[in-house]
Amino acid sequence: MRGLMQDFPLTIDAIFRHAETHHGDTTIATAGPNGTTRSTYAEWAQRTRKLGGVLDTLGISSDGRVGTFGWNSQRHLELYFAAPCTGRVLHTLNIRLFPEQLTYIANHAEDEVVFVDRTTLPLLWPLIDTMTTVKHVVVMDDGGDNEIPDDPRVLDYETLLADAEPVEFSVTDEGSAASMCYTSGTTGNPKGVVYSHRSTVLHTMAVIAPNAFGLSVRDTAMPVVPMFHANAWGIAHAAPAAGSALVFPGSMMQPKALADLIVEEGVTFTAGVPTIWQGVLPELAGRPHKLRDIGCGGSAVPKALSEAYREQVGLPILQAWGMTETSPVASSGVLQPRFDDADDETKAARRARAGMPLFGVEARIVDSDTLEPQAWDDAATGELQVRGPWCAQDYYNPDAGVQLSTDDGWMKTGDVAAMDEFGSIRIADRTKDLIKSGGEWISSVDLENAIMSHPKVKEAAVVGIPHPKWDERPLACVVLNEGETATEEEILEHLKPLVAKWWLPDAVEFIDEVPKTSVGKFSKKDLRSKFAEYELPSG
Amino acid sequence: MRGLMQDFPLTIDAIFRHAETHHGDTTIATAGPNGTTRSTYAEWAQRTRKLGGVLDTLGISSDGRVGTFGWNSQRHLELYFAAPCTGRVLHTLNIRLFPEQLTYIANHAEDEVVFVDRTTLPLLWPLIDTMTTVKHVVVMDDGGDNEIPDDPRVLDYETLLADAEPVEFSVTDEGSAASMCYTSGTTGNPKGVVYSHRSTVLHTMAVIAPNAFGLSVRDTAMPVVPMFHANAWGIAHAAPAAGSALVFPGSMMQPKALADLIVEEGVTFTAGVPTIWQGVLPELAGRPHKLRDIGCGGSAVPKALSEAYREQVGLPILQAWGMTETSPVASSGVLQPRFDDADDETKAARRARAGMPLFGVEARIVDSDTLEPQAWDDAATGELQVRGPWCAQDYYNPDAGVQLSTDDGWMKTGDVAAMDEFGSIRIADRTKDLIKSGGEWISSVDLENAIMSHPKVKEAAVVGIPHPKWDERPLACVVLNEGETATEEEILEHLKPLVAKWWLPDAVEFIDEVPKTSVGKFSKKDLRSKFAEYELPSG
Repeated sequence: MRGLMQDFPLTIDAIFRHAETHHGDTTIATAGPNGTTRSTYAEWAQRTRKLGGVLDTLGISSDGRVGTFGWNSQRHLELYFAAPCTGRVLHTLNIRLFPEQLTYIANHAEDEVVFVDRTTLPLLWPLIDTMTTVKHVVVMDDGGDNEIPDDPRVLDYETLLADAEPVEFSVTDEGSAASMCYTSGTTGNPKGVVYSHRSTVLHTMAVIAPNAFGLSVRDTAMPVVPMFHANAWGIAHAAPAAGSALVFPGSMMQPKALADLIVEEGVTFTAGVPTIWQGVLPELAGRPHKLRDIGCGGSAVPKALSEAYREQVGLPILQAWGMTETSPVASSGVLQPRFDDADDETKAARRARAGMPLFGVEARIVDSDTLEPQAWDDAATGELQVRGPWCAQDYYNPDAGVQLSTDDGWMKTGDVAAMDEFGSIRIADRTKDLIKSGGEWISSVDLENAIMSHPKVKEAAVVGIPHPKWDERPLACVVLNEGETATEEEILEHLKPLVAKWWLPDAVEFIDEVPKTSVGKFSKKDLRSKFAEYELPSG
Repeated sequence: MRGLMQDFPLTIDAIFRHAETHHGDTTIATAGPNGTTRSTYAEWAQRTRKLGGVLDTLGISSDGRVGTFGWNSQRHLELYFAAPCTGRVLHTLNIRLFPEQLTYIANHAEDEVVFVDRTTLPLLWPLIDTMTTVKHVVVMDDGGDNEIPDDPRVLDYETLLADAEPVEFSVTDEGSAASMCYTSGTTGNPKGVVYSHRSTVLHTMAVIAPNAFGLSVRDTAMPVVPMFHANAWGIAHAAPAAGSALVFPGSMMQPKALADLIVEEGVTFTAGVPTIWQGVLPELAGRPHKLRDIGCGGSAVPKALSEAYREQVGLPILQAWGMTETSPVASSGVLQPRFDDADDETKAARRARAGMPLFGVEARIVDSDTLEPQAWDDAATGELQVRGPWCAQDYYNPDAGVQLSTDDGWMKTGDVAAMDEFGSIRIADRTKDLIKSGGEWISSVDLENAIMSHPKVKEAAVVGIPHPKWDERPLACVVLNEGETATEEEILEHLKPLVAKWWLPDAVEFIDEVPKTSVGKFSKKDLRSKFAEYELPSG
């Protein structure tokens, strides 16, 4: 027997229409070097319809890839909708990637046009001749004072928009591609994830739920997480669907600027990676604000940081977990009522977990070779695998041998996790970041968290160094707080009550900074290169 | 270009697995004449899997209709999932329908089994021989003391469950039927709406959003709105998907019993029709509670009632709008921030509206004949038409001539509404309840609200009476508060400053009670019959 409901597609133009129709007077603010500009969903909608006309005029193919290379801004939001709502595919290029990666990605996706902020143009322009399918470079003047090349390929965003006719949006096939985003692994070429209209709408509804971000007409949301990376964690779609006001930081990503925006714009919800919140903390502490939630992800939020927010800002950080391949939000550390009566320490530990899968995502931990399920006892670990309508099935034209899914239909995350009896996820490590010592595994993440709980320590990253007897042994790379000094012995003494004896690092190196990836995570790859020739003290 | 995401179906077994896996220790309480019983999602899940086995054992067809005839209870929730999760179709029979309607519906849907509460069995059993496809009557003993017939068709729920094996759930086709519900119009036979798995999951995600009910792990939800009517407004699916605790009132639907449950079970969210909250108000006023929201729908919530809740219970009532044909929630009166600075009177009026379409539903007002759009100026009215993935396309095997959708794909609601510039819906009337006077329309709903704002008035219903000159003229049927007396003149004087002169009723009749439909709405049909021979005073 069939259901007799309307065959109504889940497409992004429905999000667009909702914001345009019902929240036309809601504010969109964008910060920039010349101050904060203010607009509304009504103005945004009109400009977005015109941008659809621009894509037609530029001759972008009916499903052509529309590259973007810019900060979080209203214009970026216009691109987020104009491309998919006219059947094209938004391709967000990560401005922090290496030149070779950018060239590879733009060519692999076959971008026909790239929309670029004036302030990020100097990063892109030197590569433009290597991007063989790019016909146009449209510059969005965000207040930079750099020169704009005099080149027939270069066009001005506002000029194009002024001349364009608004278009009607109507996408009917929810399975069609809406956007794509590449993720750079530790090995091999970057891999492209292609989101469908359907997956995007469902992810939007999922992150709106109170067990995730809980967005509503009462919110002012500021995505600090970049729109050039993993859909800005869904906020760029969820805010218009929920009627939340938006604040975009633009290029104003300095800690003080972000703290000022939170305070002055009455931001109620924001989200970004841990290093962002590390920087913002001293700028925000003690100031009046309207924040009800700070989302954090990308890498594990140190418990100490979350607790510092609770004490100095008045609310703990909300950990969420996901990957580019999961749209990205798959689980959240929202405190479950069963821990309401727990002590602060336990609550902090629970909030720091990847937490509970959102409704719509299912998770398991298995032996990555045999797919044998591992016990949900919060101790046993296995590869975290997920499934659901906003998890990727395959990469876009992947290199030979790259396979994202298991034969039984689960997505391999590459993360190693434990799950408690209720399926709350605790990420133990990236598979490739585990340290194999004497046939047992050491979690670099657990070690890092233990080291970072030392009051003198700002950041710590642990990598495995080859060892003749034990296969690998941990090396701790430690960044101290400004002006502090410490000894290896001090760090090890601090660790002794916190971790098993055989986990204790064989050496501690004090460094100035932990190298970061293009999306702000600790770059273990770079650390490993740096210490490739490192010799552990014979112990 | 295609999206490359998992082709993962939107099916109700995903809701089931989420609650079973992640919220096993969350409470489900069910009230009854012998006290409140307490269980968990884990126990419920195990019983639901066994109930799936029972349906197999009883030989119910692979897509057979599984009738239910009972109160809101954990067992009803077991049926809500066991039927669709095994591919069958849940058919909730409304216990308040007339016998002829029940017979018609059970035969039209071809129910193979009916699950019935012991306390509601006396209503069903006399009809059982007229229900030609029903092979089994499964009695759920909810504490009634009525006799259970000694008949081979009659089986005991708990006995069947005790003997059953739990089954695996796996529905793969999201377009397949999950449940059905009949709606009785003013004319013709009841009409069946067939929900799909997809529509149910999407409606679930929509009502979880903070702009609707905002359900999360922090909630204890009590659906007072019956599970035998329009999916209990989605709460029976949304609570397990959100990990909210559940409280079912069972047969304990008296105002004091409901107020006690709210207080004693720490209910944070509840929902029901206005007459329920009218009764509960004096029982709840002044008592400590944890309510954060009271959902109301089915018919317009009188502003005076909502304001009385705000004053005496501490929170206004949240109006929502929808129909059996819209799953049912389509819009909500959540206060938009643009009215934050308005006076109390304006705020109350805004909250009493059908309000803003939920994300996923689109609405328009049109001339019902020409489909010409009407202005969104909050004054012009037209037929409200909606579309979206949880709006019905067609009725199930409808009578000849019954057509739910327009040729251009919108669902005809039969409601007459105005919309403001942001698309907030104000229901003016049911098309058939409009009073046509001298070529103009009088809104019976507006007149009723104006009359009910009189302090002596408990309820008022207005119907059109044939009139030789004006076609129809309004007759007001008024119920006074206990012990009050009033004159027709007093009522009319009260109305004069509130409505246009030509809207003033030609007569006022004081009655003991407004007749109600099976779902608690004013039955204009019954009122019209009652006053069929009424002669208006010549004016």
